[in-house]
Amino acid sequence: MNDLEAKQLIKATLSEQRYEHSLRVKETAEILAARYEAPIDKVILASLLHDYAKGQTRDQLKAQIIDYNLSRDLLDYHHELWHGPVAAEIFRDKYGLEDEAVLQAIRYHTTGRAEMELVEIIVFVADYIEPGRTIPGVEEVRKLAQDNIYLAAREAQRNTIIYLLKKNAIIHPDSFLAYNKWTNKIQGGF
Amino acid sequence: MNDLEAKQLIKATLSEQRYEHSLRVKETAEILAARYEAPIDKVILASLLHDYAKGQTRDQLKAQIIDYNLSRDLLDYHHELWHGPVAAEIFRDKYGLEDEAVLQAIRYHTTGRAEMELVEIIVFVADYIEPGRTIPGVEEVRKLAQDNIYLAAREAQRNTIIYLLKKNAIIHPDSFLAYNKWTNKIQGGF
Repeated sequence: MNDLEAKQLIKATLSEQRYEHSLRVKETAEILAARYEAPIDKVILASLLHDYAKGQTRDQLKAQIIDYNLSRDLLDYHHELWHGPVAAEIFRDKYGLEDEAVLQAIRYHTTGRAEMELVEIIVFVADYIEPGRTIPGVEEVRKLAQDNIYLAAREAQRNTIIYLLKKNAIIHPDSFLAYNKWTNKIQGGF
Repeated sequence: MNDLEAKQLIKATLSEQRYEHSLRVKETAEILAARYEAPIDKVILASLLHDYAKGQTRDQLKAQIIDYNLSRDLLDYHHELWHGPVAAEIFRDKYGLEDEAVLQAIRYHTTGRAEMELVEIIVFVADYIEPGRTIPGVEEVRKLAQDNIYLAAREAQRNTIIYLLKKNAIIHPDSFLAYNKWTNKIQGGF
């Protein structure tokens, strides 16, 4: 799949608002890819496609988690976390997309995970800072993203976890492990 | 070991301030044990002994983590988390203490863990709310502890994790798994 095809696909699938968000994530991710010398084609493709399954209903997503044999644990967590892993399976299964870096970036764009590659981190951060976002603290993440993508990712993850804790929400372990890993990396640890 | 022996042991080992804290944890834990019908002898023993190794130096604790074959991962986390697991090994090894409920309560009193038994949870909460504590939010945890020990434990854990996140500190996975587990229990989940 090339970016034109990706763009047509999401235009046909997503709401106008989510389509525009996806284009902004792509623009932002492109700038970050140039800044951090990441493979630009993969970054563009993953950022265009990341929210492909977000408009699906809970039941549709749940059925695909079961059909695609994804970890059933996923169903114990908030349904907002389901669309990334499901979209990755759809692209592999129905669109012949085999690039693991692109698939992982789509799969983990919401939770993050401990061992993220640069393409994944860029999509994760771009999704958080694209110009349409007004999340409290986003300005600080935008600033950090100019100089250190790990600091930006850690700050975004930290904000999200604190936000969820304040709501007494359950946190997906991948989010936590990513926060710990990036923090350790920043401190010069493992 | 009975409580008189435990008291003598910690009086001989701990600073005056930490000894007084331990007595207050014991008093608090005793009230909670009666309220929640937990085995009172185990609760008393674990709460008296929980901070036994806290006065040791980092090097002493580290040497024992290695000698006792505790998980080396522990060394990747803050040294404040080392004294519980080390104390449990000392009591088993040098004082013939074999009661697993007591040992687990000592071992996990700082981090918590997902599968905590009632004795452990009581010591964990008592350590957080004993009358000498002035942690922001402690009053709310004290109130919750009168009616629902899981709500109290979750609130204490949540406060601690938010506090650590605000400092950009690494969070031990057991803390966060305990938070998730208790939250899920409260919501009627797994």
